[in-house]
Amino acid sequence: MSYLYQLGERRVIEIMIRYLDVMPRIPVPFWDDVSAVDLGEDRLGVLKTDMLVWSTDIPPGMTHYQAARKAVIMNISDLGAKGVRTTGVLISLGLPRNTREEEAVEMARGMNAGAREYGAYVLGGDTCETDEIIISGMAFGIGEKGKLMLRSGARPRDILATTGAFGKTAAGFKILIEGLDAPDDLRRKLVDTVFVPRARVEEGVALAESGAVTASMDSSDGLAMSLYDLSRSSGVGFRVDQLPASPEARRFTELHNLELSDLVLYGGEEYELVLTVKPERIEDAKQALRRVGGELIEIGEVTEEKAIVYRSRDRLEPIKAGGWEHFKSSP
Amino acid sequence: MSYLYQLGERRVIEIMIRYLDVMPRIPVPFWDDVSAVDLGEDRLGVLKTDMLVWSTDIPPGMTHYQAARKAVIMNISDLGAKGVRTTGVLISLGLPRNTREEEAVEMARGMNAGAREYGAYVLGGDTCETDEIIISGMAFGIGEKGKLMLRSGARPRDILATTGAFGKTAAGFKILIEGLDAPDDLRRKLVDTVFVPRARVEEGVALAESGAVTASMDSSDGLAMSLYDLSRSSGVGFRVDQLPASPEARRFTELHNLELSDLVLYGGEEYELVLTVKPERIEDAKQALRRVGGELIEIGEVTEEKAIVYRSRDRLEPIKAGGWEHFKSSP
Repeated sequence: MSYLYQLGERRVIEIMIRYLDVMPRIPVPFWDDVSAVDLGEDRLGVLKTDMLVWSTDIPPGMTHYQAARKAVIMNISDLGAKGVRTTGVLISLGLPRNTREEEAVEMARGMNAGAREYGAYVLGGDTCETDEIIISGMAFGIGEKGKLMLRSGARPRDILATTGAFGKTAAGFKILIEGLDAPDDLRRKLVDTVFVPRARVEEGVALAESGAVTASMDSSDGLAMSLYDLSRSSGVGFRVDQLPASPEARRFTELHNLELSDLVLYGGEEYELVLTVKPERIEDAKQALRRVGGELIEIGEVTEEKAIVYRSRDRLEPIKAGGWEHFKSSP
Repeated sequence: MSYLYQLGERRVIEIMIRYLDVMPRIPVPFWDDVSAVDLGEDRLGVLKTDMLVWSTDIPPGMTHYQAARKAVIMNISDLGAKGVRTTGVLISLGLPRNTREEEAVEMARGMNAGAREYGAYVLGGDTCETDEIIISGMAFGIGEKGKLMLRSGARPRDILATTGAFGKTAAGFKILIEGLDAPDDLRRKLVDTVFVPRARVEEGVALAESGAVTASMDSSDGLAMSLYDLSRSSGVGFRVDQLPASPEARRFTELHNLELSDLVLYGGEEYELVLTVKPERIEDAKQALRRVGGELIEIGEVTEEKAIVYRSRDRLEPIKAGGWEHFKSSP
């Protein structure tokens, strides 16, 4: 007999999925960022639900407004990673009975703001009573069949890339949770990435329209874990040649003598897209991103061999399947 | 400064909604059972999310399988009440880390069963770690514009009706929570309505297709509260001439000298539809239900005056806005 903390979140999901009947001709398989239903005429209804739990997901100092906004953003991000804009958001909100009216109002304002920033609307939801704040969001959008950037399309020799640099949220969490210090301007930047995450929706839509991308996902579980997820779905491996380290994360690690690669690889709660691009189409992908004010960062290559490695000074080091995992990671 | 327990769930929702931008030409307004987005060509994507919390929603004796099944059913029921079949279900599952693997498997089996009973599939979801079990379900289905049975269409002189009798779940909860007794066969029937709820999906679809129904909702907050919700959305009142009391509930109240009308009106977690029908089309509604093995129970009339009253032996008694309400009702 096993308990969930012995199994970890991924194994629990694996086990549970075995007991689910699979919809015939399901447009998006289990284990991708989103689910989908066929709407006919080459359109898909794209759906995502993800839950935010106050005690495990909200660091000290984060406001009710920011928490509710984030619960919306993290669902919108998953659709964006597939190249789909969110139309509507629903929220199931669990609140303790001693929540103050003002806090509920701040959460309403936060979820509205999160949706409106990305052109979506909060369409409805439900409240109920819980011991701690639980914000279960769901996002709906309409996608085009054949254009969704799934996790499963990466092929050997594709270019591995991201839409941005990594490490800031990990540094932000070290400040907020472990109490590490940083000069005011740096501190603000790092903490902001935790409190006010941004979803790469326009970037995802532009990349999907370019037709140059073979696989994509958001990096909310960390860069390393995203590589493992893409590897699993696509049946490939990755060689990372260059870590997409943010200058702010670098500055922070120098201050505290921390290993930069740890922050870049094993952070999480980052919403950059991790993607693979056909080598001959790399300029198209770059241009698509530039048009929406983004930038493609090439970090490595897709490999036939399923290992996930980092080439550091001509040595290949394995990248661990690390990152936050529910049930296992918590104290 | 107010706390939620001073406001109650409905007031909290009222307050929060004020801070949400309303989607232009929103197909279904706030306060209905479901939300919807326009899919074009007279079709709507119909969405619902509702959360089940172990400590407040699951009575002693209910299994993990039954709880997960119910979390799916209660979302499917809301779509069914609008006349819409659910295509896909997503689940955000919060689990304590000391949950046993077998319990997780039972929940997967339960949610799958709940979906499959109504022709739907579980398409995906998410798990995370919580202090107690939280099952946040969401349902998606495709509806036809103009055919959705909203809460807002009831007109004076329409016939008030239900798809079934009430009171069994209230009796079931008295057995399970208050420890009241009942003979084995009766006990089983009453407790089953709590443990294994049924959604009236085929009934809802048949009624919507009949075109005879002006308003409809499911009765998960109890019959009285459903009347208040329909009254609010339609701007009408109701006169109940005949309580749709289940024979089993009647037998139970006789055993324990309880007031039958309390169980019928102020129960909850029942999934019968409460609806209003154009008087000249009542036979069509009855036939539509009969074709799917159901039965329409006429219980009263829609009134111009917004009061909600029960005509008992030629006296009009007000029906209270009672029933379960989160934040307020709990101890």
